[in-house]
Amino acid sequence: MFALLTNDDGIHAPGLNALADAMQTVADVVVVAPDRERSATSHSLTLHSPLRAEEIRSGFFAIDGTPTDCVNLGIHGLFKRRPDIVISGINSGANMGDDITYSGTVAAAMEATLMGVPAFAISLAIDGAGLPDYRPAAQFAVKLAQSLSRNRLPVDTFLNVNIPQVESDCFAGVRLTRQGKRVYGDLVIENIDPRGRKYYWIGAGDLHFKDVDGTDFHAVHRQAISITPLHLDLTNYRSFENLAGWDIFHSS
Amino acid sequence: MFALLTNDDGIHAPGLNALADAMQTVADVVVVAPDRERSATSHSLTLHSPLRAEEIRSGFFAIDGTPTDCVNLGIHGLFKRRPDIVISGINSGANMGDDITYSGTVAAAMEATLMGVPAFAISLAIDGAGLPDYRPAAQFAVKLAQSLSRNRLPVDTFLNVNIPQVESDCFAGVRLTRQGKRVYGDLVIENIDPRGRKYYWIGAGDLHFKDVDGTDFHAVHRQAISITPLHLDLTNYRSFENLAGWDIFHSS
Repeated sequence: MFALLTNDDGIHAPGLNALADAMQTVADVVVVAPDRERSATSHSLTLHSPLRAEEIRSGFFAIDGTPTDCVNLGIHGLFKRRPDIVISGINSGANMGDDITYSGTVAAAMEATLMGVPAFAISLAIDGAGLPDYRPAAQFAVKLAQSLSRNRLPVDTFLNVNIPQVESDCFAGVRLTRQGKRVYGDLVIENIDPRGRKYYWIGAGDLHFKDVDGTDFHAVHRQAISITPLHLDLTNYRSFENLAGWDIFHSS
Repeated sequence: MFALLTNDDGIHAPGLNALADAMQTVADVVVVAPDRERSATSHSLTLHSPLRAEEIRSGFFAIDGTPTDCVNLGIHGLFKRRPDIVISGINSGANMGDDITYSGTVAAAMEATLMGVPAFAISLAIDGAGLPDYRPAAQFAVKLAQSLSRNRLPVDTFLNVNIPQVESDCFAGVRLTRQGKRVYGDLVIENIDPRGRKYYWIGAGDLHFKDVDGTDFHAVHRQAISITPLHLDLTNYRSFENLAGWDIFHSS
C-alpha cells in the first residue's frame, strides 16, 4: 500500500506524526502537508501563485499551500506512483456536523476523491486540556486503511472519521453515522484597536449541536468512533418536487 | 426587502456592480465583499486575525477577508438589520459540477444558509473574449429574489444559479438541475524558477464535463438558465447499506 498523508494543522502537528508512525508499519508512507497551520481553509486551491515543496526529512514534504494543494501535488506532481489511499489528519479537534464545510482536513479527503483516490479524514475530538494521545486514533486509522484496501468505497464517496478521546481500547464501538447539525450563535466580536480603529473578529459564540440519534455528534458524545460517508454531490434531490412548482421555472 | 450582496471576485468586479444596480430597483441593498479577488477560497473563514470593514462608497463595504467572512460580518456584525436575502455573484465564470466545492461564490451562499438566511449564488458562464454583459443575469437575479420572497426554500437549502452568456431575453428557459460531474485531467505543471529552484503550479489540464441530461452543465450548454438546489448535508445515505457490511463496524 502506498499511502499519502496530509492534514491542515501543518506538517509538524503531533496528530499527523502519530498517523505517519502507525501507517509506516503497514504501508509505504509519504507526507505532503502545509508548512504551517491551515485550519478553516476549506477546499481552497492556490491558482494564482506557484507552490514550493521542501522535503524537510525523508518522505516528509512541506508545501506553502493549503491541504487541497497538498493532495493535488501529492497525486499529480511529486511522485511517479499514484497513492492507493489518502488519509487526512489526525486533526486536533473534531470535524462534525456543518463544521465540515469549513474544514481543511475534510477538504483534503474530498480532493483525493475528486482525483479518484480512496480517502478518509480522521479527527480526534479533543476533550479538555493536556497533550492528547493520538495513538489510539492512529491505530484505528491503520485498521480502517486495511479495511479500505479490502472493500471498495462507493463512487465519489469518502469517509469522515471522528474519534472520541478515550483510553486505548475503550471505544464504545464503531458507528456508521450521518452528518449532524450545528446550532450557530452570534459569531462576531466588534472591538476598537490601539489606534482607535474598529475591527471585527469572527468568534465561537454560543455553539452547540443537536444531540440526535444516528449523527456524528451523538456517536462521539457516547465514546463511539463515528464514520460518516460523505459524497461530492450537494444536490438536494428531495427538494425537486417542491421547487419545480415555483413560477420561476414557468416563465422567462 | 433588505438584500446583502457579496462575491469572490472582489468589490470592484463588474458582475457584483451590475447585480447591485439591478437589485436596487426592488430592495434596500448593501454590498459586503472582499477588497480583492478571492476566487477558489471555498468556504474559508478567517479565525486567526481581525477583519476590517471599509465603506468605500455608500452601502459598499470592502472586507480584508473571504466571501464567507463577508457574509458572516454582514449578518452578525455590520448592520442592525438582518438581511432578508443574500445573493452572491454575479461570478465571472460558471460554477458547476464538482467545481462548486472550490467556489467562494457558492460558499458565501452556503454561509448565509448556515445562518438561516435565504440565499443564492449566481454565475455567468462566460463564453469567449470581450467584456461580458452582466445585465441579463442581473435582471434574472431580481426575478429570482422576488420569487424567493414569495416561496420558501426547503430547510438548509440554497440555490446555485448559472446563466449562459446569450443576448438578453434569448435564454432557452429556466431548468431545475442537479450538480454535474467534472472529468479532471493532470492538473499540475512543474517548472524551474529563474534561480534554479523547482516549483509547481496547479493548472487547468484537460478539463471537460460529462454532458448528462438533467445536470447544470447540460442546461447551460443549451443556453438555458440552470438552478441547482444545494444543501449542507454531504452524507451519502445511499451508501449506508453497502458500508454497514464492512468488518470495521463489527470489531474494534
